Amino acid sequence: MKEFTHLDEKGRARMVDVTEKDITLRQAVAQGTVVMQPETFQKIVTGGMKKGDVLGVAKVAGIMGAKQTAELIPMCHPLNITNVEITFNPVEEKHCIEIEAQVKVEGKTGVEMEALTAVAVAALTIYDMCKAVDREIVITDIRLVEKKGGKSGHFVRGG
Amino acid sequence: MKEFTHLDEKGRARMVDVTEKDITLRQAVAQGTVVMQPETFQKIVTGGMKKGDVLGVAKVAGIMGAKQTAELIPMCHPLNITNVEITFNPVEEKHCIEIEAQVKVEGKTGVEMEALTAVAVAALTIYDMCKAVDREIVITDIRLVEKKGGKSGHFVRGG
Amino acid sequence: MKEFTHLDEKGRARMVDVTEKDITLRQAVAQGTVVMQPETFQKIVTGGMKKGDVLGVAKVAGIMGAKQTAELIPMCHPLNITNVEITFNPVEEKHCIEIEAQVKVEGKTGVEMEALTAVAVAALTIYDMCKAVDREIVITDIRLVEKKGGKSGHFVRGG
Amino acid sequence: MKEFTHLDEKGRARMVDVTEKDITLRQAVAQGTVVMQPETFQKIVTGGMKKGDVLGVAKVAGIMGAKQTAELIPMCHPLNITNVEITFNPVEEKHCIEIEAQVKVEGKTGVEMEALTAVAVAALTIYDMCKAVDREIVITDIRLVEKKGGKSGHFVRGG
Amino acid sequence: MKEFTHLDEKGRARMVDVTEKDITLRQAVAQGTVVMQPETFQKIVTGGMKKGDVLGVAKVAGIMGAKQTAELIPMCHPLNITNVEITFNPVEEKHCIEIEAQVKVEGKTGVEMEALTAVAVAALTIYDMCKAVDREIVITDIRLVEKKGGKSGHFVRGG
Amino acid sequence: MKEFTHLDEKGRARMVDVTEKDITLRQAVAQGTVVMQPETFQKIVTGGMKKGDVLGVAKVAGIMGAKQTAELIPMCHPLNITNVEITFNPVEEKHCIEIEAQVKVEGKTGVEMEALTAVAVAALTIYDMCKAVDREIVITDIRLVEKKGGKSGHFVRGG
Repeated sequence: MKEFTHLDEKGRARMVDVTEKDITLRQAVAQGTVVMQPETFQKIVTGGMKKGDVLGVAKVAGIMGAKQTAELIPMCHPLNITNVEITFNPVEEKHCIEIEAQVKVEGKTGVEMEALTAVAVAALTIYDMCKAVDREIVITDIRLVEKKGGKSGHFVRGG
Repeated sequence: MKEFTHLDEKGRARMVDVTEKDITLRQAVAQGTVVMQPETFQKIVTGGMKKGDVLGVAKVAGIMGAKQTAELIPMCHPLNITNVEITFNPVEEKHCIEIEAQVKVEGKTGVEMEALTAVAVAALTIYDMCKAVDREIVITDIRLVEKKGGKSGHFVRGG
Repeated sequence: MKEFTHLDEKGRARMVDVTEKDITLRQAVAQGTVVMQPETFQKIVTGGMKKGDVLGVAKVAGIMGAKQTAELIPMCHPLNITNVEITFNPVEEKHCIEIEAQVKVEGKTGVEMEALTAVAVAALTIYDMCKAVDREIVITDIRLVEKKGGKSGHFVRGG
Repeated sequence: MKEFTHLDEKGRARMVDVTEKDITLRQAVAQGTVVMQPETFQKIVTGGMKKGDVLGVAKVAGIMGAKQTAELIPMCHPLNITNVEITFNPVEEKHCIEIEAQVKVEGKTGVEMEALTAVAVAALTIYDMCKAVDREIVITDIRLVEKKGGKSGHFVRGG
Repeated sequence: MKEFTHLDEKGRARMVDVTEKDITLRQAVAQGTVVMQPETFQKIVTGGMKKGDVLGVAKVAGIMGAKQTAELIPMCHPLNITNVEITFNPVEEKHCIEIEAQVKVEGKTGVEMEALTAVAVAALTIYDMCKAVDREIVITDIRLVEKKGGKSGHFVRGG
Repeated sequence: MKEFTHLDEKGRARMVDVTEKDITLRQAVAQGTVVMQPETFQKIVTGGMKKGDVLGVAKVAGIMGAKQTAELIPMCHPLNITNVEITFNPVEEKHCIEIEAQVKVEGKTGVEMEALTAVAVAALTIYDMCKAVDREIVITDIRLVEKKGGKSGHFVRGG
């Protein structure tokens, strides 16, 4: 097993030095799921209100959240991300919203934290916008799905 | 079922007006879990490195994340939170870290989003600090556990 | 004419000391206008895309912008605003979008800068989302419309 | 007329993917105007206080505002801008201050939003510093004046 | 000697819970000094450039820095500060600039970190604006000078 | 003596235009010292609490502070720093903690402000975590120690 790169030889936390890394195209895809009561799901997806507005706000929040990753996660490097894409997949039978975020950059380090942060912030925003009707919402299964570019190669979850 | 308070009569997103609400003591407790490979768990909890450093950084990140909630979640009100407490419960048989955040404020609106954001940011930080050795980490079961204060009364999950 | 309260006796900039002011309900309403080409206006309001999405994103941006006022405007006091409401009025014959923001707080100082900032950020966001089709968009007439609460009394523009 | 690049085929908002764009020198110039009462203008420009201090603070605010553009405007890409220049042109006969901001970057996307944001924040700061004596100030005519670099070529307003 | 309130019984860092504290007027005064070469000092204070501009920018930066204290210092509580005052005392014989910051709030916890942060950011800004001519500048003696309000009473340094 | 590059010909503050500068590897090392009472020093370094926790939090704060430099210091350029390293050297006989920060970037301008800001924020955090037991702590001797890369060459303090 490899060593934790965020911890120096004395176990102190540290930022990984990426100065010598190559600038390459790097992409990451993360997913997560927001599970809610069936009535809440209906209200979000097909209810009496304008379809999709909860998801519209969650999308904006997720994109903006990706841009704040380096301010939230202590050891993350600031990056000029060149794209964030967030898509929602409402699954009626499980009354949940699946969230997927894809982030790209041309840089010295990858963007998996940006993709995961985008998913987390979009999920928290869905919770926030529905909490007045449903306090039992659960945010679950936030995970990396795919990662390309850089020395560590192409990662596909379960692949 | 109550109406979504974040959506006006035309379905447009809006901030809830809390101007007329009373200033009372409000508390919220949220939890979440970070599941990892057994080797990763051992490295975090009892490994060759200084015990607890990953969790030490995650704790700081979670506390600072709680303070940024209103900048991350579009419809959240800025609040002068008076306490954030984050505790970690490592569960060896499930090789996971359970995270609990408690937030308090004396204000016009509750702090459940702050508690949930603290959990999410702490979880993302654990992921970030371990990702060099384990890309299959999953952040799961982020949820509100308890909420006190304000008009909506005392909520206990599953209670 | 009153003296500039942001400048001390030597002309140096300073924050106004509001420590001794009363905590009262304070509200402010600001407006502004985004003027564009007729085709751009049609695309925003009735075009082939989902109606209102440009305005949906602009609304979120304006609300979030209001919360960042004290970080943008050097001498502004941080405030826990309790409501931000943003409405858009598309005026077809002038192919412009009128923006109105209302902000409320219970505090020691007013929220006119928050209302004006909300309008400015919403307007800049409309520009950003349409700039690929129209670089001649103009943001104009950003002004305070009404202000209530506090020692300076009730201000109504042109009233 | 070109399509809105910020909206996908379903009308959902999205960030434009600039990953494949070339890194080139990009510049943008924006302008705006702050119109006030003649007495306010005199106080700013030639009054009893140190000349130019309102403008000094507004300049700092505008430069710092340009650096926060990607945190304010949802679909903007973060950029390492290499220069922001803000100049003020006081026009006595119209008792207004004209503001011009020029921003430069070597990057994959342009800086017109940064230039427009710099103008807007500088204008809001002038308002803030003068509002105790003049609540009728109007911020007007915020617009792009020139843009160079990148695929879309050289834009000159009215040119 | 009292116990460190920021460390729980196991030595883990924590935020101090100020929920039960009284809301009172709290003030703090901090000072610090920026020592430079005599030529640099002359350039700042009496040189060929507009007198005081370096200090003008440093003042704005210090005030804005005070407002960001809770985002910089992990265990600090967010506070709605009601005043920040920064004054500079140029001392020719020691070719240094003394900085003093006074911060006020009506709240549940004190503002000494805000006053110290204001001094530090103002000092760093002076360094930044002069570094092209003097890389040997030293920022020194940042310390609390006075503190009033709250349970811990009136502190005067060396008093 | 060279001219202040942050001031234009009229003495107005300005950002330095680094657009035309080369992208090279740039490094900076800064230091500073936090002096405290002997009992406070003992508590931090060898006391009854877990060794090093104050320094653990200060390290995280310093790293995150370096990433916020361009938001704190008005004329600083935003940079994608590739490494921040913070080390603490406790000096028992002087009951002080010496702080050293090294920052790296591959960019058009140097990172001395990032290194100095990292030191300042780490020092302020040590103060914050110990202030309940020691209000006489002094932050002192914050200075640039070494700087490499870019046109101005290799600077070594006192070298």
